[in-house]
Amino acid sequence: MSTSSPHRLIRAFLRQPVDKTPIWLMRQAGRYLPEYRALREKAGGFLALAKNPELACEITLQPLKRFPLDGAIIFTDILVIPDAMGLGLYFAENEGPKFKKMICSQEDINKIIIPDPTEKLNYVLEAIKLTKKELNNKTPLIGFAGSPWTVATYMIDDAKKMLYQNPELLHNLLAKLAESTVLYLNAQIDAGVDAIMLFDTWGGLLRTPDYHNISLYYAKKIFSGVNHRVPRIFFTKHGGQWLEEMVDIGCDVLGLDWTVDINKARLRVGDKVALQGNMDPMMLYTNPKKIQEEVECILKSYGKHVGHAFNLGHGIPKDIPVENVAALVDAVHELSTKYHG
Amino acid sequence: MSTSSPHRLIRAFLRQPVDKTPIWLMRQAGRYLPEYRALREKAGGFLALAKNPELACEITLQPLKRFPLDGAIIFTDILVIPDAMGLGLYFAENEGPKFKKMICSQEDINKIIIPDPTEKLNYVLEAIKLTKKELNNKTPLIGFAGSPWTVATYMIDDAKKMLYQNPELLHNLLAKLAESTVLYLNAQIDAGVDAIMLFDTWGGLLRTPDYHNISLYYAKKIFSGVNHRVPRIFFTKHGGQWLEEMVDIGCDVLGLDWTVDINKARLRVGDKVALQGNMDPMMLYTNPKKIQEEVECILKSYGKHVGHAFNLGHGIPKDIPVENVAALVDAVHELSTKYHG
Repeated sequence: MSTSSPHRLIRAFLRQPVDKTPIWLMRQAGRYLPEYRALREKAGGFLALAKNPELACEITLQPLKRFPLDGAIIFTDILVIPDAMGLGLYFAENEGPKFKKMICSQEDINKIIIPDPTEKLNYVLEAIKLTKKELNNKTPLIGFAGSPWTVATYMIDDAKKMLYQNPELLHNLLAKLAESTVLYLNAQIDAGVDAIMLFDTWGGLLRTPDYHNISLYYAKKIFSGVNHRVPRIFFTKHGGQWLEEMVDIGCDVLGLDWTVDINKARLRVGDKVALQGNMDPMMLYTNPKKIQEEVECILKSYGKHVGHAFNLGHGIPKDIPVENVAALVDAVHELSTKYHG
Repeated sequence: MSTSSPHRLIRAFLRQPVDKTPIWLMRQAGRYLPEYRALREKAGGFLALAKNPELACEITLQPLKRFPLDGAIIFTDILVIPDAMGLGLYFAENEGPKFKKMICSQEDINKIIIPDPTEKLNYVLEAIKLTKKELNNKTPLIGFAGSPWTVATYMIDDAKKMLYQNPELLHNLLAKLAESTVLYLNAQIDAGVDAIMLFDTWGGLLRTPDYHNISLYYAKKIFSGVNHRVPRIFFTKHGGQWLEEMVDIGCDVLGLDWTVDINKARLRVGDKVALQGNMDPMMLYTNPKKIQEEVECILKSYGKHVGHAFNLGHGIPKDIPVENVAALVDAVHELSTKYHG
């Protein structure tokens, strides 16, 4: 990995000194932005946007035109891998993501192809290349994928039931997902992303031994297969009790959800990783003054240490006021200078 | 509190030696039992059952007729307090519990009465008295209430929004709920319950400072107001990262959800409290052999120590096979003898 970067965000990921705490936001390109909603309606839904590199690029850049964010994250979805595997991703009106074909048996798993990302997921890679060109190296671009367990929970009717009733079947699926994820993240890095993030959104539903055998096992496998040219972020929602166990899987940064005390988290992980997080997204429903207070509180809690990338503890809700996001980004930059240099 | 009890479960709660690890199950009187479903259909729904002391007693005893459980828990709901406050609890078909009147303003809170349990919740107290009579002191009976925060999440359209937008309003509501809960739990104890449990089901959604100011603050307030004649259990789902902070609120037992490693939990809380839990309820979808293996695993993890009451980490799902519950109860009794005496 290159150990020198002009980008505040990448420097924070690498635990290097910065002038201000950098900030980016999970789901920063999303439904709270009127220009996103307009484009989505015009295109005819989420997938039409995600599969069109020009539009995906445009959406990735939308929040950066409004706010001085320190990072962009490519506009796509963690479920594009199973879609590329041939399962048929779709979004039913007012419902979550669904697949036309669900995984029930070993036969279903045998039928799954390991997608060649340069073929089946080329629309993501093209979107990355276009976005990198537009960003012109002024702002780093983050690529991402879902953890095998998290992605599998959408591919199986009840993944916990399969875990206990037929763990071998589940692991056969997770292994294929992990293999696909390595290829996909390497292709994202080749296309130019400056950091990658693995979203283990549903790891917090697992028993501790399963968290080890599933979340951590496959994350480690993925990180060991992915070119370490760029920093890696690992994030388990509701994973606060397992931070010490996460630091050895080969990631550079741990994402924290909003329930975790960031000061205690820092003391628990020591200097092994940087931390990303962790304001409660629901705080964005308040007002600029309260948001500033909360930012100060989180910055103070982290203290005068390297290795903090400000973020939310989960994605931005779809209906928060845009001016509150502006207030958040400004507050982080303005209030953090005293903790640096 | 009386420090001597003939009951295995109460002795475990008090960290006294037992011959076998006792077991009871959250939602042990529930929809997985065909005799429950039959009675519910006949009565015309959940509330008709809960508000009829004879039927509530009958349902409380149903699982004990099938399985040699070490405790009964009175059949009722955490939302009977706001119902008694005048908000009008009802259950829409295939939906969760709802209230006819929701709490939006200080005026709404002003209108709330602190229910006199001997009047407004007498049906629960009568059910307790009938059940105690039927149990004839062979099995202890557990009473319970929801934590103010957990109950409030059902009374407010978006409790997290209120917490951040108008914390004073939320706290005014929580204070009234806490006051009502003290009266209610004391009335349950007067009616004869042998232990009480406070369900903080949604405490795991809070930021750490709010977990302190809300979950722990009101739990402590409630426990300090409730007669300590009987042991108290406190349970926060997804609260695994805060166990050390829970031990000083005046409870005797901490409930653990399925994500927590019970051995580590025991080391973290020391000899300050007993532990209750923590098999994943989803494990009940497997078969007797796998259930036995999991029971052995949890018993071994807890080890040869006093103070373990076996339970699930969350309520029994509605569609698990009854024979698997039988296998679980037998496994705990049979496999645990080697860890005692």
